[in-house]
Amino acid sequence: MTARVLVVDDVLHNVKLLEAKLRSEYFDVLTAMNGIDALNIIENELPDIILLDVMMPGMDGFEVCRRVKENPLVAHIPIIMVTALDQQKDRVTGLEAGADDFLTKPIQDLPLFARVRSLVRLKVLMDELRMRDSTGKAFAGDAGMEVSSTIKLDDAKILLVEDYERVAHRIMGYLDGAAQSIDMDDVDVGELTTENLGQYDLFIISLSLRKVDGLRLCSSIRSNEATRHTPILILIDEGDNERLIQAMDIGVTDYVTRPIDGNELVARVKAQIRHKRFADYLRGKMQKNMEMAVTDSVTNLYNRHFLSTHLENVFSPDNDKQANLAMLMLDIDYFKIVNDTHGHAAGDEVLEEFAERISSNIRSIDLAARYGGEEFVVIMPETDAEFALFIAERLRRTISDKPFEISTSKEPINVTVSIGVSIASDECNTKEKLLSDADKGLYKAKDSGRNKVCGFKCLDE
Amino acid sequence: MTARVLVVDDVLHNVKLLEAKLRSEYFDVLTAMNGIDALNIIENELPDIILLDVMMPGMDGFEVCRRVKENPLVAHIPIIMVTALDQQKDRVTGLEAGADDFLTKPIQDLPLFARVRSLVRLKVLMDELRMRDSTGKAFAGDAGMEVSSTIKLDDAKILLVEDYERVAHRIMGYLDGAAQSIDMDDVDVGELTTENLGQYDLFIISLSLRKVDGLRLCSSIRSNEATRHTPILILIDEGDNERLIQAMDIGVTDYVTRPIDGNELVARVKAQIRHKRFADYLRGKMQKNMEMAVTDSVTNLYNRHFLSTHLENVFSPDNDKQANLAMLMLDIDYFKIVNDTHGHAAGDEVLEEFAERISSNIRSIDLAARYGGEEFVVIMPETDAEFALFIAERLRRTISDKPFEISTSKEPINVTVSIGVSIASDECNTKEKLLSDADKGLYKAKDSGRNKVCGFKCLDE
Repeated sequence: MTARVLVVDDVLHNVKLLEAKLRSEYFDVLTAMNGIDALNIIENELPDIILLDVMMPGMDGFEVCRRVKENPLVAHIPIIMVTALDQQKDRVTGLEAGADDFLTKPIQDLPLFARVRSLVRLKVLMDELRMRDSTGKAFAGDAGMEVSSTIKLDDAKILLVEDYERVAHRIMGYLDGAAQSIDMDDVDVGELTTENLGQYDLFIISLSLRKVDGLRLCSSIRSNEATRHTPILILIDEGDNERLIQAMDIGVTDYVTRPIDGNELVARVKAQIRHKRFADYLRGKMQKNMEMAVTDSVTNLYNRHFLSTHLENVFSPDNDKQANLAMLMLDIDYFKIVNDTHGHAAGDEVLEEFAERISSNIRSIDLAARYGGEEFVVIMPETDAEFALFIAERLRRTISDKPFEISTSKEPINVTVSIGVSIASDECNTKEKLLSDADKGLYKAKDSGRNKVCGFKCLDE
Repeated sequence: MTARVLVVDDVLHNVKLLEAKLRSEYFDVLTAMNGIDALNIIENELPDIILLDVMMPGMDGFEVCRRVKENPLVAHIPIIMVTALDQQKDRVTGLEAGADDFLTKPIQDLPLFARVRSLVRLKVLMDELRMRDSTGKAFAGDAGMEVSSTIKLDDAKILLVEDYERVAHRIMGYLDGAAQSIDMDDVDVGELTTENLGQYDLFIISLSLRKVDGLRLCSSIRSNEATRHTPILILIDEGDNERLIQAMDIGVTDYVTRPIDGNELVARVKAQIRHKRFADYLRGKMQKNMEMAVTDSVTNLYNRHFLSTHLENVFSPDNDKQANLAMLMLDIDYFKIVNDTHGHAAGDEVLEEFAERISSNIRSIDLAARYGGEEFVVIMPETDAEFALFIAERLRRTISDKPFEISTSKEPINVTVSIGVSIASDECNTKEKLLSDADKGLYKAKDSGRNKVCGFKCLDE
């Protein structure tokens, strides 16, 4: 996947060189020769990725990086810091400033393209998940990602696959005991690709395994639904470019070349875990939004919108299962008195407890929704009139038999419910008709004294 | 990106050959030798992509394809039909059965890997967007994608970039006038990568342009935020494998080799437009879910959950802009009487109109939310007590000055509102305190006869 790359370096020759390399691989390239210009371009052009030199007069690369990561509008753009080979500590400083990766000068083609492509792949996925409001702005509080320096390795679960015991031991040492090592003598690749791999934050896989092909292992991890998005960091011999390219094609996330530098390994491990956690956070947020969109927040039942969509699907022309559907419409009797006497908070408690009693007395295939204030609807598939009336009567008693305990009131409150029942049929074959029939039943129940169940056109009434 | 591929063919030699090819590129491979086995494996193993032979005894490939696309649990898995070279009509039949792409026998490496990778890339993105409920099932109604046969080209917007006029003319003919052709004499690549490209459903780009490098053009389209996900189909000379590989690296979606076969072109165009529309549908759905999660459905104002999150951010320790914040808490007077006299529907109409009047009388930086039944909150940043009381008074009059027109009532309804005002300060520096101060003001307003504005600890009261 191509991308728009911003190259920032104060030396014209370096800028031109990187630009040429990237353009030869058909990347779109922007350039800046100092920190201030870079920040302007970043805010106005929103590049997909930034290659940022550390040593610049005026504002140095670390400061540019910090400012980008503090600005919620651009903090999501990955930054690769470009450091001198002998400046080990610059890498740590860069990652602490919020950088996502680093490259050492002189920059070689393969690491350059590998790291840029890996971060672009991540960014494209993350961009899909970042919530935006209708004006296109990222949603408040979503743009930020914790910086690597706050990542504690002890919270991470890492699986190390390296069958040279001494090497494995040394790596475990670098990682402060956060990693769990697996001996390939004991497992085969097939066994590894099971659900239990889903628990890991990162896989570190040697490409010099004696028993299995490390790339095959990476491919299994990537192909497995549970580990599709888990970062993989490979350990590869310096100069083994052929396998590095294969690894990147498979979708390996990052690599460290042997001999392994402990600081670099730790820095890369932290960066990967940070990306993983941010992605998990965004996925969780999307999931939660979806649930909130269909759920009533007081009762945790489905909301009116969901009920409406569901009923439209049920009665859509290509669904032939509607024949045996029953609907209960429930309305809590004299609910206003609860609110007026005990206050809104108590009213909410009654609604919660009411919803809880309803939910635990219907089948798992039934669907309960809050229809409005104190009005609820239960949809019962594959249900005839007799059974629907039976369940409605049971629900009525479930509510009236035991007073509701409320935290703000010493005395438990007596609650009753009136229930109307309707049945889908050849005449009653739309959402509106089913609801209106149930409402007529409910009206009858209210009219005849409340705390009653009444069917409408159920049985021969 | 690697993936788990299911190969379905009744000839063992073909299965073995495809398996070997795919495994050599580190794909995970499953195999089946008839339709029934294939359907079982698809449901149980959920492969990422299916390579499906057309000609099989018993259940043929078209039938397998139809059954997969009818099953909401697996309909999202892309299918590549494998057809004989001379069976043009099989391609159309396959796409009508819901197939996503096709390959012709004998299968060559490059088309195989290019098409598989392109569909895997699409699937990974789509999987992120498919909504799932907490049990992991895709959300009702989301799995389906319209089949290509229902795609009408006249609804599509296609941009064709081909500067040989005769060729362009012929292609426009195949596409039934749906495409718009652009003459590269008139524009330069830079000009093309602007926002107006976002309107297209598909780009068809010749790699034999005389004025510009077609690949550079593809790269610009891919790097542009507005067209990042728009499919690109390239026209390339048979055997130009080097540029085909480059194109796939850039992220081109599909290709047709010259000499161009009209049927193949139309089939591929339809498949791409279908994918694009499904992706747009999923993105729209996600967007809508996000909006629903923060919006009150009756009034379209922000909901209580959003208000709460927003206030937590405002009062978080790293926000220093809280000093001048004001809050108005509004409660419609005697709202229950409206509901009781005119019914719930009329009540909702009043709420809508009320929200509308409030929204249009506050500043764009202010935030209005429905706090509960008939209770609303307005947050006003950078606002002192005097200005807050002034605005509150204006809102009060906006409501009381003009009766509300309701569709179900002949007589317009008189509505008034009581408003409490609170101001953030050194003592009032939490969400809870600000709300409770505003509530005290509201209580005072209600207590002194309603249709009033009362501050609490605003000015020297």
